[in-house]
Amino acid sequence: MSKVKPIGPIPDGYEGRDGELVVGGLSASELVARHGSPLFVYSKGLLTKRIDALRANMPEQLHIHYAMKANPFGPLLSHMIGLVDGIDIASGGELKMALEAGADAGHISFAGPGKRDDELRQAIKAGVTINIESPSECDRALDIGSREGIKPRLAVRVNPDFDLKGSGMKMGGGAKPFGMDTDLVAPTVQKIIAANAHWRGFHIFAGSQALKADAIIETQAQTIALAARLAEEIGHSPEHVNLGGGFGIAYFPGDQPLDIKEIGTALKHQLSKLPAILSHTQFALELGRYLVGEAGIYLTRIVDRKQSQGETFLVTDGGLHHQLAASGNFGTVIRRNYPVAIANRYGKPAEEVVSIVGCLCTPLDLLSDRAEMPAAQVGDIVAIFCAGAYGATASPANFLGQGAADELLVD
Amino acid sequence: MSKVKPIGPIPDGYEGRDGELVVGGLSASELVARHGSPLFVYSKGLLTKRIDALRANMPEQLHIHYAMKANPFGPLLSHMIGLVDGIDIASGGELKMALEAGADAGHISFAGPGKRDDELRQAIKAGVTINIESPSECDRALDIGSREGIKPRLAVRVNPDFDLKGSGMKMGGGAKPFGMDTDLVAPTVQKIIAANAHWRGFHIFAGSQALKADAIIETQAQTIALAARLAEEIGHSPEHVNLGGGFGIAYFPGDQPLDIKEIGTALKHQLSKLPAILSHTQFALELGRYLVGEAGIYLTRIVDRKQSQGETFLVTDGGLHHQLAASGNFGTVIRRNYPVAIANRYGKPAEEVVSIVGCLCTPLDLLSDRAEMPAAQVGDIVAIFCAGAYGATASPANFLGQGAADELLVD
Repeated sequence: MSKVKPIGPIPDGYEGRDGELVVGGLSASELVARHGSPLFVYSKGLLTKRIDALRANMPEQLHIHYAMKANPFGPLLSHMIGLVDGIDIASGGELKMALEAGADAGHISFAGPGKRDDELRQAIKAGVTINIESPSECDRALDIGSREGIKPRLAVRVNPDFDLKGSGMKMGGGAKPFGMDTDLVAPTVQKIIAANAHWRGFHIFAGSQALKADAIIETQAQTIALAARLAEEIGHSPEHVNLGGGFGIAYFPGDQPLDIKEIGTALKHQLSKLPAILSHTQFALELGRYLVGEAGIYLTRIVDRKQSQGETFLVTDGGLHHQLAASGNFGTVIRRNYPVAIANRYGKPAEEVVSIVGCLCTPLDLLSDRAEMPAAQVGDIVAIFCAGAYGATASPANFLGQGAADELLVD
Repeated sequence: MSKVKPIGPIPDGYEGRDGELVVGGLSASELVARHGSPLFVYSKGLLTKRIDALRANMPEQLHIHYAMKANPFGPLLSHMIGLVDGIDIASGGELKMALEAGADAGHISFAGPGKRDDELRQAIKAGVTINIESPSECDRALDIGSREGIKPRLAVRVNPDFDLKGSGMKMGGGAKPFGMDTDLVAPTVQKIIAANAHWRGFHIFAGSQALKADAIIETQAQTIALAARLAEEIGHSPEHVNLGGGFGIAYFPGDQPLDIKEIGTALKHQLSKLPAILSHTQFALELGRYLVGEAGIYLTRIVDRKQSQGETFLVTDGGLHHQLAASGNFGTVIRRNYPVAIANRYGKPAEEVVSIVGCLCTPLDLLSDRAEMPAAQVGDIVAIFCAGAYGATASPANFLGQGAADELLVD
């Protein structure tokens, strides 16, 4: 018998009814019977609840932006647009989706190190704020604005000289392709102002997926201090500062949810003692994963149950083509289990140790490695939690000819 | 100055003309001018050459199958169908593509641990060989055959009790979701024969992406011995044995190309001294990556050139959404550089150390880390080699709203 491996923590807000996982009033079996398998299910209720809790803890004047890269599914995006103060996009494709989902261009901002001219043009014509990532991108944007006869709305993305400690992905504190080093910021802003474009402020993103409140608090304080220092150097107040995000969610065994109360208290304090040059600045958080990650699950039906050398495998009709991160991203060295359950035996006691695999013909298609589960049979439904962010679009849907899974937004 | 990192070896068969990388008679600049950027380019000539070289080295009677999961692009697949003896598929989606590309159903075989009933039905109706992966899948296939009034063509996939040493992915030698343990094979074959279905033989796949000829030679000998042992146990000769593949290609610094002459010599010897029960068996190799990987490149245009803290970044309009493996698969712990070049300064001496990144707003979108290159400017074209296998379909094309790259088959 091989060693049992733990699974990640099932997020708050999921419940069982008559032994079935229920989302938006529908059981896993009903969802799959009506909409097929595999299926992503996102909960409006959980999305709203998450943002309500965040607003209740954060400073009242703080804006919350949704980074739609985490999940651009149209109905979810429309729901989010109604809940947040801004939408952050990362491509011309996302711009189109955001406008189609009902976002107001005045509340969209566009970041990304490799914006093509046609993307800059679309953004300028739509009137969205562009986070300028390099002096040469600034020249291109000013040039396009001038040729189109439109005053572009430009913020400057800063490569901060600090990083977010303990973050899953560091986006500052060293040589980076994102934004510009601090010494380039003032000249670039002065050029924007001199060109009579609309200078919107700063975008400063130091890292993502952190679970330590004190690291986020420290980074926010550094970010505000950096914005103040740059504003003084420029000699103008920024109307807007995007403080970045970095709020993580608990995926793996031992992960503890982020303490947002602690972060909110510290940020209230920070915003109450702002230097004069930032006293009229609108601050925003840019969050993706934190807002939507826990509000989604992935349901996949078991098509085979088999034994091999004393181990039991449940083979599903889903897999890494929809849930690449849960599978371990094509061979992460230290793979850990996401939170997983047998959705139609929800809350039942563990009866056996099983590995849950996808249908792809590759050993990398492992959804849950040797976890304890109630005994499941062919036809049963596996739920993978934390599937609301970086699931469908961050996975190779067409791998092995499979194609995308359906997605569904429920109440 | 940070440490220079080496790049992988550029595969044989690529050449420069007037300082430009040329594929199928077209320069990188011509290809991108005509077909846009980013762009996958696959060379018919290199595909044909690879298979010719393989056939020249392998035993004459050996069949070569193409595992289309490596690259299912329609025109490439059609070309491959004309060159190989069989097409190996991994889903109902691939079955449809293979038939559309002109494959003969009698030369298609279907493997995969999670075949749905509708996929089994399509395969049985089309007349392809199904590699049965478990006793319960066997029951489902026999049942569908009987209901459809069709005699299914069934091989049995064996989970070998050995693995391919040094392979990138082990698919045998332990508890696995693929195929069935050796003790289940004879009863399953006997059931197939008793049900009056067409028993085709065995599928035995021990691993993939190995670069050591001696490891492949050893595995092939073990595979033949296992097939003989199982055939004796069953009391019938298999008409077909799929020996698996495992032939790797050189991606990374220090990788040496596989010595296929050595493998061919050993396999000729093996096939010349077959036990009686295998004397009329047709043997096949199932190769994907080895056949197509080196015949493809990915071209992407530089949209920005920037400095950060003393390092130079070239930002391209492509990225991990098309070339996930080259980027390091969302955070491989030890990331190494694929072979990469500035395609319109091909063969020029190295002048600087640059990191080449994609356009996505994530630090994971790194195509080449601190490699020595000729000095490149905005508008220049980066080529990533070894892009013919597990590129387009093994990457999350819709990540950050980007969408798929165009693909092109050239002479």
